[in-house]
Amino acid sequence: MKELTIENAKNELMAIQQKLAAYEHAMAILQYDGATAAPKETAANRGVSLSVLSEEVYKLSTSDDTVEILEFLDLNKEKLDAKTNRMVYLMLKDLREMKKIPMKEYVAYQQLLVEADDVWHRAKEASDFEMFRPLLEQLFETNKRFAHYVSPEKDAYDYCLNQYEEGLNKKTLDEFFGKLRENIVPLLKKISAVPQVDDSVRFGSFSDKKQEELAYYLMKTIGLDLGHVGLSTTEHPFTISLGSHHDVRITTKYVPDDFVCSMYSVIHEGGHALYDTGSAEDLAYTVLDGGTAMSIHESQSRFYENIIGRSRAFCNYVFPFLQQLFPAELKDRTADELYIAVNKAEPSLIRTEADELTYSLHVMIRYELEKRVMAGELEVKDLPKEWNKLYKEYLGIDVPDDKHGVLQDSHWSGGLIGYFPSYALGNAYGAQFLSKMKETVDVDACIEKGDFEPINKWNRENIWQYGRLYTPAEILNRVLGTDFNADYYIAYLTEKVKDIYGV
Amino acid sequence: MKELTIENAKNELMAIQQKLAAYEHAMAILQYDGATAAPKETAANRGVSLSVLSEEVYKLSTSDDTVEILEFLDLNKEKLDAKTNRMVYLMLKDLREMKKIPMKEYVAYQQLLVEADDVWHRAKEASDFEMFRPLLEQLFETNKRFAHYVSPEKDAYDYCLNQYEEGLNKKTLDEFFGKLRENIVPLLKKISAVPQVDDSVRFGSFSDKKQEELAYYLMKTIGLDLGHVGLSTTEHPFTISLGSHHDVRITTKYVPDDFVCSMYSVIHEGGHALYDTGSAEDLAYTVLDGGTAMSIHESQSRFYENIIGRSRAFCNYVFPFLQQLFPAELKDRTADELYIAVNKAEPSLIRTEADELTYSLHVMIRYELEKRVMAGELEVKDLPKEWNKLYKEYLGIDVPDDKHGVLQDSHWSGGLIGYFPSYALGNAYGAQFLSKMKETVDVDACIEKGDFEPINKWNRENIWQYGRLYTPAEILNRVLGTDFNADYYIAYLTEKVKDIYGV
Repeated sequence: MKELTIENAKNELMAIQQKLAAYEHAMAILQYDGATAAPKETAANRGVSLSVLSEEVYKLSTSDDTVEILEFLDLNKEKLDAKTNRMVYLMLKDLREMKKIPMKEYVAYQQLLVEADDVWHRAKEASDFEMFRPLLEQLFETNKRFAHYVSPEKDAYDYCLNQYEEGLNKKTLDEFFGKLRENIVPLLKKISAVPQVDDSVRFGSFSDKKQEELAYYLMKTIGLDLGHVGLSTTEHPFTISLGSHHDVRITTKYVPDDFVCSMYSVIHEGGHALYDTGSAEDLAYTVLDGGTAMSIHESQSRFYENIIGRSRAFCNYVFPFLQQLFPAELKDRTADELYIAVNKAEPSLIRTEADELTYSLHVMIRYELEKRVMAGELEVKDLPKEWNKLYKEYLGIDVPDDKHGVLQDSHWSGGLIGYFPSYALGNAYGAQFLSKMKETVDVDACIEKGDFEPINKWNRENIWQYGRLYTPAEILNRVLGTDFNADYYIAYLTEKVKDIYGV
Repeated sequence: MKELTIENAKNELMAIQQKLAAYEHAMAILQYDGATAAPKETAANRGVSLSVLSEEVYKLSTSDDTVEILEFLDLNKEKLDAKTNRMVYLMLKDLREMKKIPMKEYVAYQQLLVEADDVWHRAKEASDFEMFRPLLEQLFETNKRFAHYVSPEKDAYDYCLNQYEEGLNKKTLDEFFGKLRENIVPLLKKISAVPQVDDSVRFGSFSDKKQEELAYYLMKTIGLDLGHVGLSTTEHPFTISLGSHHDVRITTKYVPDDFVCSMYSVIHEGGHALYDTGSAEDLAYTVLDGGTAMSIHESQSRFYENIIGRSRAFCNYVFPFLQQLFPAELKDRTADELYIAVNKAEPSLIRTEADELTYSLHVMIRYELEKRVMAGELEVKDLPKEWNKLYKEYLGIDVPDDKHGVLQDSHWSGGLIGYFPSYALGNAYGAQFLSKMKETVDVDACIEKGDFEPINKWNRENIWQYGRLYTPAEILNRVLGTDFNADYYIAYLTEKVKDIYGV
């Protein structure tokens, strides 16, 4: 390699990132295809290519040339701009972690993920936890092993949490969830003492075609650029960036007798897509492109889904369109009925269909379980039993089978251990962002008019444009001028319950 | 690199091929996604990743290590099995050709293809040849330049033809097309002298959903394994293999008022998919996987589409299903009416919708034009005028605009110059295969029963399993025990015309 200067090292750094972005584009589209268009028996074939590609990512990320460039730039950090410094920091951090994981095990893990995804789908369909158990054991074991390789001094589950949120740990979460439980459980009790609300407005017969029309309408309404954001259907909705923030896909699932499911799924994934596509132009094809952490990501998706999407103003705004789209079902209905229906709070089995109030309890259960498995206090084989026990304890309901229980989520099969808490944190961050946003934006008035640009502008300027330039804590401090405080979220939930149930 | 032995060089060869297969998988899925699910303005983003990946393919294919392994194995060819020898031969041939093309130009061409595809789609939609012209000029120029780099001694168009069929040249094609013209034009004249047949059975109102049901029925009927073969919709139907013959996708397009379009498109692409998925298991992830040449590929797709699909026996077999699927449209119709309708011969504008008889004339026009552009006898800017002139001359019809004329096909925008003749050759090969197959298989009886296994078995044993192990000429000689002869095809067409028109 020729002698390094700041100039050529920076160019090399950009070239390496572009190459990594291309490999990741390839891997992401293979995964996206697997979830959308691929024939059923082709997972192994994708696994072969994914393992080759992930090996290339590993090699490129850890090559002597890459290391030399990163270390050179790291030594010269005072001469670099903030963006380059952050790229170097994140890449060196990944590199040092990766170097501690033997390549063979890293590649084997990529293959395990492909197989696990496939088996989990079939196990869920058959409601057969035993089918999935050996893979889930391997997934937890591998995560424990990797945690030990990378941070032997750290608690293995804290290591997992840090994959999704720098600096997060069990202590913080135990407190956070404790606070939520203390406040949500009494709210649920109050609700159970008054008559349940009527949510019949959401039910009827809604063709895929019309639901798709609704999905595109919602995507446009919240301000997504359909030239760069695509929509497909999958069993489990998700958002994925392909190559850069110039190509983002969201997915949804149409439930034939309930248009509300896909409606809020689209707004949720749409929130992710707004965040992803909102990265500053010069972040494309760098490691700073996209969102900074899953919690901030969820703060955006759940901000659009719940804080905006389940507001009275939003129900008022979209109702005329809904009425026109589904005249047979909605001609004698009102926006107010919709507002009540989409805010009905009731303990239920499925996290993704849970209401805003009980949602965090679903997350808490997963947090408790994966924390205990990672600590060796719970065996994978006992997960279904414990799952069902906690659903009874926190939500008061019986789980009829594993399909509606421990097999319901795709996260563990995708290796996302430590991810779940992001959902609950995201909810709480979102409520605090809202309070700040309201200082300068008349949020309800904007929603009522369907004018999302002032809201999106605030999010873009304060959050989206920075991609991964700042840590979640930095983003929170920059935006809020203060630390995170879950009280905003508690207050928000309490007010919503009062508005819907009068208690 | 450690010292080479036959054993480790063979292992290295397999590893290189698996890596190439993974890169090609990635590139193929990016292209497939571009044609199926991708949002409109994401082509440039895919282009960035495709150029990185194609650069990696180039580097790996031409690296010193790869060259050393291939040359070592080539020197030891008498110690190798036939399959390994063929792999080495094909890879060395590609390598030597590739080495003659500067990497920058190769990568730039990949990007040009992405842009050309995008612009062609928009130009076609706007029926605006001028929009596409600059790109088409670059495509032809690049093909000329590459031809000159690789085979300066060879005619540039012969070089292009050889990309799709080893050993093919203008001389052979001039004779072949001459023979077709001599025979088809008189047949067309005879038909124009008698009353045209009634094809009204194909028209009506056919929902996408029912046409999709028909598509899956046809895929199953002809013996495709739906666990490994997927279906999507695109503007222009195609077949693509992803990674290996374990994952093949076909696409179709549903025309709302004519179920026959998608029906035969599915059978055509299904024929390609049968060939691709029929490779022997040990060819997966090697350069021998898939089909040997486009002409043999087209011989299979057009064999299923026309020879089988437009036979009286097939119409009899599928008609009850069609009648059940489209009761309103078909309840008073007969299989015989379908047979007549799908064999109606009439000069028309669009190649992909052309009948079996006039089809080769469409191909001939494209052959004439690209031959002349490559020879410098015709400028790209004059293509629309010449296109329209030849349609008048051979088919006697006026082309109303470029959308229905020179912009109709995706081939040139995809860089496939020299591909078109494969279609006509494929037709002719197919007729000769049929005659051979009939020596041992009662083809009509099988079709009448919907029992495709004896037919597929014959094709699998004689053609599919070998992948690229043999050249097209070798396949023909092995299967037929004699040289290719277009007379079988002429006889087949003559008989069909007699059966439909009585002339």
